[in-house]
Amino acid sequence: MRIVDIISKKRDGLKNSYEEIYDLINGYLDGSVPDYQVSAWLMAVYFNHLSSEERVDLTEIMLNSGEKVDLSEIEGIKIDKHSTGGVGDKLSLIILPVVACAGIKAAKLSGRGLGHTGGTIDKLESIPGFKTSLSKENFINLVKKNGLAIAGQTASVAPADKKIYSLRDVTATVDEISLIAASIMSKKLAIDTQGIVLDVKVGSGAFMKNKEDAEELALSMIDIGRKHGRKMSAVVSNMNQPLGQMVGNSLEVIEAIDTLKGVGPTDVTELAEVISSRMLYLGGFSARQSEKEVYEIISSGAALNKFKIFVESQGGDPDIVEYPYDKLPVAKKIIEIKSKHSGYVKKIDTEKIGLASMLLGAGRAKKEDIIDPSVGLKVLKKIGDRVNLDETLVKLYINKKDYDEAEKLIHQAYEITNDKTEKEKSVIKIY
Amino acid sequence: MRIVDIISKKRDGLKNSYEEIYDLINGYLDGSVPDYQVSAWLMAVYFNHLSSEERVDLTEIMLNSGEKVDLSEIEGIKIDKHSTGGVGDKLSLIILPVVACAGIKAAKLSGRGLGHTGGTIDKLESIPGFKTSLSKENFINLVKKNGLAIAGQTASVAPADKKIYSLRDVTATVDEISLIAASIMSKKLAIDTQGIVLDVKVGSGAFMKNKEDAEELALSMIDIGRKHGRKMSAVVSNMNQPLGQMVGNSLEVIEAIDTLKGVGPTDVTELAEVISSRMLYLGGFSARQSEKEVYEIISSGAALNKFKIFVESQGGDPDIVEYPYDKLPVAKKIIEIKSKHSGYVKKIDTEKIGLASMLLGAGRAKKEDIIDPSVGLKVLKKIGDRVNLDETLVKLYINKKDYDEAEKLIHQAYEITNDKTEKEKSVIKIY
Repeated sequence: MRIVDIISKKRDGLKNSYEEIYDLINGYLDGSVPDYQVSAWLMAVYFNHLSSEERVDLTEIMLNSGEKVDLSEIEGIKIDKHSTGGVGDKLSLIILPVVACAGIKAAKLSGRGLGHTGGTIDKLESIPGFKTSLSKENFINLVKKNGLAIAGQTASVAPADKKIYSLRDVTATVDEISLIAASIMSKKLAIDTQGIVLDVKVGSGAFMKNKEDAEELALSMIDIGRKHGRKMSAVVSNMNQPLGQMVGNSLEVIEAIDTLKGVGPTDVTELAEVISSRMLYLGGFSARQSEKEVYEIISSGAALNKFKIFVESQGGDPDIVEYPYDKLPVAKKIIEIKSKHSGYVKKIDTEKIGLASMLLGAGRAKKEDIIDPSVGLKVLKKIGDRVNLDETLVKLYINKKDYDEAEKLIHQAYEITNDKTEKEKSVIKIY
Repeated sequence: MRIVDIISKKRDGLKNSYEEIYDLINGYLDGSVPDYQVSAWLMAVYFNHLSSEERVDLTEIMLNSGEKVDLSEIEGIKIDKHSTGGVGDKLSLIILPVVACAGIKAAKLSGRGLGHTGGTIDKLESIPGFKTSLSKENFINLVKKNGLAIAGQTASVAPADKKIYSLRDVTATVDEISLIAASIMSKKLAIDTQGIVLDVKVGSGAFMKNKEDAEELALSMIDIGRKHGRKMSAVVSNMNQPLGQMVGNSLEVIEAIDTLKGVGPTDVTELAEVISSRMLYLGGFSARQSEKEVYEIISSGAALNKFKIFVESQGGDPDIVEYPYDKLPVAKKIIEIKSKHSGYVKKIDTEKIGLASMLLGAGRAKKEDIIDPSVGLKVLKKIGDRVNLDETLVKLYINKKDYDEAEKLIHQAYEITNDKTEKEKSVIKIY
């Protein structure tokens, strides 16, 4: 079939066959199909969406465009997790040691942050000595020995997704759930696991701005995963405010350690426990057993100890666990951003909080930017909290002289009203 | 504004401003905006359409991308006509001499045929000696002297439209009425006239397959034209069967001459009279006066005489008027395609008739193809006609040995049933 007819079909609301999607995507990769035809197809998909079958096909085609990460040497049950990205999301640092303690093998490939969202690799690299660039052999050996390892994503996984994502980025076709689902799953399915737990963020700091879209994305990814033979679970979680208090790299490591010590913020603790439990559940534990196990692993200190082993095994300084503020790089200059109103926090534009942290140097506006691991911010007031005039909303940890823009963003982010507002729950739905 | 944000606006159903469309189209022309962004925008337009204002803006921007045809040296009222293209449409050859007799200045730029549709320039070039490549000076002088001249379209008019059309062609974004309207009008408005009469074809041999779309296209073009200060009129006409009987180049010239002699097919005569009247009406005649004038111009032989002068002035042999079958090239071998059924003609897939004529050599599959002016076909049976088994449906005028494909297409095109069917009217609506 001619490419223009493949586009017409999608434009007219018909389904594209596996062969049609294959010809389009692989033609794009080998240069025989021009980008202007792919972008027209993507825009037609934006309007007419992909059916379940088409999503599965597209995912498989993108998955097969690259290398797969063979973990067959690792015995036991391998369960992965994936977050769609948010502000203050340090959950992998907590969850992976927890599930490793329960016998799950957690071999995780993580990414770096971009824009208002952070990335696990950046957070780990704030730990002095920590290495995320591991040989395949070393990575596998660490998972075999400790039950967990985290390394940077390789470029050889799903190159078709990478190329298509770049095109979507400049053609206003990023925000289409079926394309997002296929993009994420093409990368997750490249890693050899029995199951995947998805953390789908929703709210002002997430890509999904409303519950319906987040649920649709969760179900869409679950569907793709199951049709590829994986056990799947998803948690739709709140991103109407930063997760926890800390936003920044070393600051988030500190909060993860606090949570492993049992003294972390409630929302971080709760969500970490829920996702960990879902991973155990996929790994064969009963639902009830999973929750009990996770609770005991944290409260006994086993998870904290596992985290220490994990850090040390990847070259990091294990003393950060005992002396986080001394051993981790933390900016010394602290600026308090104070409220100009009194009342209750009604809303937080969380994307603005993420951007403020980025402007301080904790994140990247462009891929090439270099981050400062020691800076960031601490969110003292969250939705539903009472605030007095001149009370501190946020503390900035800075190294730069200029923080005007960040301060402005924080004031813009907070909506404070006289009406008492409910606190937000961290877990919205579990699949 | 970034191009991706211009695309997003259209994608989200918002209106693009003049500046936004300007940046997109001119950026595309100068190479600073890549084709993949333009094609994504075009697909978003396919789904969300263009508002009246956007259509006017796009038309103006494409119009201003090229040269305008200055006819200010020609005094008097200049009225143009445009057909959206069909099968057997020889109307310009009839209408232009008619309106010229009434004092209207008809300075027409015409195109060549492609696919199943014919082009006026190809038809004229079947006349021995006829030249369609005229210097601007010669063209203007002929219109001044005779009241009419027809020349080939220049590439310098609306180059943006040409570039965008090529992209639409391969990205399944041709069939969008607002884009079609802007494309046609950007070329028509480049010619300096007071008014334009549009012949919008609808049916199985036209680009518009249904009445609603044709009416929308007509209104859309009228709106663009009026907002650019032109007097506008449109006729929605039937293309569910070929216009008249003759399809092919010299064959259509013969039928045009017959019509000017008052012995042409009813549908050709009727539609030629209606469009001519509308041109006179835009030129200042009253509606009633227009009709009367047109009738008299044809019945008196004045239009036939004007046609003869027109042909001679552009280098053609005027004897074709008296001896059309002798002086025009007409294929000598005639094949009769006979009905395999008896009954009534219910439908004719007119695109297939056009393609059959193209396959005989009367048209082009690709722009570069060379046509045979002498071949084509004569449609003896039209919708509503009684047909007996083995009665001739269509006569082929051929020079090639092989006409199997054309014959097959003709049999496929005819739908013959036992039920008596109404004849179709040639004029559907007049604006």
